[in-house]
Amino acid sequence: MAGTNFVNLIKTRGFFDLIKIIYKGQECFMFDYGPLGSRFRQNVQKHWWDLMVHQQQNVFPVESPALKSVNIMNHRQEETISQNSIFLRETLQQDCISKYLQILKLTNNKLPISVASVGACILSSAIHSDQPQERQFLFGGSNRTCLLLQNYTSPSNINTTLDFWVQLRLSWWKKFSNIPGNFSVTSKTLNDIHPPPGHATSGHNNQTYRAIAYQFPWGPEVVEEVKNVGDKVFRDLQNDELEKYMGQMFGKTACLPHCIECETSIEAATAAWLVDSYYERPTSKTADRKHNMVLKLHPQIAPFQVAIAINSASKAPSHEMHHVCSHLEREFKAAGVTCFNTSEHGSSPEAHFRRNDQLGIPYTVIVNENTMNEGLIHTRHRDTQIQSPSAITEIVGLLTQSLRTPLEDQNTN
Amino acid sequence: MAGTNFVNLIKTRGFFDLIKIIYKGQECFMFDYGPLGSRFRQNVQKHWWDLMVHQQQNVFPVESPALKSVNIMNHRQEETISQNSIFLRETLQQDCISKYLQILKLTNNKLPISVASVGACILSSAIHSDQPQERQFLFGGSNRTCLLLQNYTSPSNINTTLDFWVQLRLSWWKKFSNIPGNFSVTSKTLNDIHPPPGHATSGHNNQTYRAIAYQFPWGPEVVEEVKNVGDKVFRDLQNDELEKYMGQMFGKTACLPHCIECETSIEAATAAWLVDSYYERPTSKTADRKHNMVLKLHPQIAPFQVAIAINSASKAPSHEMHHVCSHLEREFKAAGVTCFNTSEHGSSPEAHFRRNDQLGIPYTVIVNENTMNEGLIHTRHRDTQIQSPSAITEIVGLLTQSLRTPLEDQNTN
Repeated sequence: MAGTNFVNLIKTRGFFDLIKIIYKGQECFMFDYGPLGSRFRQNVQKHWWDLMVHQQQNVFPVESPALKSVNIMNHRQEETISQNSIFLRETLQQDCISKYLQILKLTNNKLPISVASVGACILSSAIHSDQPQERQFLFGGSNRTCLLLQNYTSPSNINTTLDFWVQLRLSWWKKFSNIPGNFSVTSKTLNDIHPPPGHATSGHNNQTYRAIAYQFPWGPEVVEEVKNVGDKVFRDLQNDELEKYMGQMFGKTACLPHCIECETSIEAATAAWLVDSYYERPTSKTADRKHNMVLKLHPQIAPFQVAIAINSASKAPSHEMHHVCSHLEREFKAAGVTCFNTSEHGSSPEAHFRRNDQLGIPYTVIVNENTMNEGLIHTRHRDTQIQSPSAITEIVGLLTQSLRTPLEDQNTN
Repeated sequence: MAGTNFVNLIKTRGFFDLIKIIYKGQECFMFDYGPLGSRFRQNVQKHWWDLMVHQQQNVFPVESPALKSVNIMNHRQEETISQNSIFLRETLQQDCISKYLQILKLTNNKLPISVASVGACILSSAIHSDQPQERQFLFGGSNRTCLLLQNYTSPSNINTTLDFWVQLRLSWWKKFSNIPGNFSVTSKTLNDIHPPPGHATSGHNNQTYRAIAYQFPWGPEVVEEVKNVGDKVFRDLQNDELEKYMGQMFGKTACLPHCIECETSIEAATAAWLVDSYYERPTSKTADRKHNMVLKLHPQIAPFQVAIAINSASKAPSHEMHHVCSHLEREFKAAGVTCFNTSEHGSSPEAHFRRNDQLGIPYTVIVNENTMNEGLIHTRHRDTQIQSPSAITEIVGLLTQSLRTPLEDQNTN
């Protein structure tokens, strides 16, 4: 029952929905993102990029066209393509390895190097209809925005490197979660759990890999794989000149590197963190059994961090009150806080709180007649439901501070 | 001749290249981005997003699957799709308008609202072979990452709104340019200049529009269009219930809004700013006629802002020197400066400068024996070629400051 409420919330509040299309002559579903979902996805991608590209050493992003590129000289392939028109790639692996030599040249053959890629992929695999309805909705789309990092390093320290990435990725998943313990790492084979979204599940050839899984209401689902793929990427190229792929660690002799892959998708993160954030809060009226739905999203990934509303005693709030709201909006934006100005929407504070809880907005600030007379503004916190007054001159600083704190606390762990 | 050098630089330095594929049974080219181009593109997209989504009011991003979505109930369309398998969208307009009602609901029918979208599109139009080789390379790809904003507002202030967006967009183009005067706005018909990249060139039905053009070596090319498309987007829906699309400005009666569209692509920005930044600098040796190639990219969009190199008197720099470089790299990253640590690459300072100029890196810092003995570090500026010493404890603060200054100066204009 919670599942149905959750799915309806995600659909009606503009996170995402599934639409039916025909792909390769077969019916399939595609994720279609609304205004809230698009903001949420952008935040997820930004945080992945910050961690994997900006904070690591020698990471080089690559970006390839969404269409699978075809060598026109290969007549057998050309024929296939002409019949099928075009198709989208299923993974980003080929795009990454195709840029390896270019990147090795850029670092003057020095290892380690990493290649990062973000891109739309398509998976034709469908979900069986005997699955819970919530799972069908969260994992039912064939399109994915995959997030892949390949780290090339010396085979001699490959196990240390694998552990490094597993820990880094696991802490990323936990960081934005309310119940970090729901994320776990397993080294088991994938046969007993569902295939990860955005991954082909072909045999792993005895390569070492770890799966990061999230405990969904119906059981664990793999949301990310961290694999040691060895030098398979090079041997698969079927190129005799393996020497040119060789690189050198500082102070060591040249070798053919081995590769660690961290692979996930924005859809996996969406599924895990939205479910993680969802809860049904009993209404304050004890008489009825009704619940309010809340998305307790981490402030750093929430679509908006602050909402601004007006609570006026008169039916038509004054122009001055609207000016105060616009001024606050500009100040929040200048401080880097994302802000939803709902001051012209009307309706009661309770209606604002109910909607903002459903959109996952951590703070709602309320401008009323008091604000105009005494310079006091009320802030309501999504999670505690506490409403507290503060001076209007201090509110931007206060909220900016408390929106930053959670992430910085975790970073120092 | 400069054109050939420029094209070779962009290819060999890993910005982008063209690859041939078969699309809809026909040969065409696709842009394929290397590690430097991918970083550059990410920066362009980030700055568009900051200006158009974060800094404006009531902008809602939407993100749709790259494939054109098809209503399976429409049997005529279904047939067409089954034959063609799938195809990519050619514009983002349909994606934006399809989310309009959802967004209007989110703002409680209050105008103005804007819809923003970034996504991969494909254009089958090819470039005629009698064009200059440089133009063929810059505009020869069929794939585009389009950047579209639709602003819905009351028809009564549509002309003011059009002017607002034209000025905002024009200043964006000029901000990252060395010769801002090369960007200009024209209201002429597009027949006498080349069609803009990423745009369908079908008739404009007498709608008001402005074209932002960049003066390429071979003539002007439109890089962005800002159009007043009126209420055409709604009338094209062929829906009788136009009332439900009506919205309300503060203190006014409800009306069917008119729409301003700002449309460009990352490829248009790439073409303009790379050409804008390119120049050939005579070598210091006056005897020969050789030139060094330089990309004078704005620090905010350059793939890297700082490079770190070692200039050691001995052949094997000490471990301590490498530690200093790693330490600097971490400090730069913590300060939000993108950093290319080339301390393990070897080669002379001159070779570093030549490469870094070609990659568009504004600053190169050099660690040498002096750094270890006296705490002095040398910084070389790409544009002035001046090398100046500073205390190693101050270098991160100094460069962070000067990398930020240009943009902030322009923002206060």
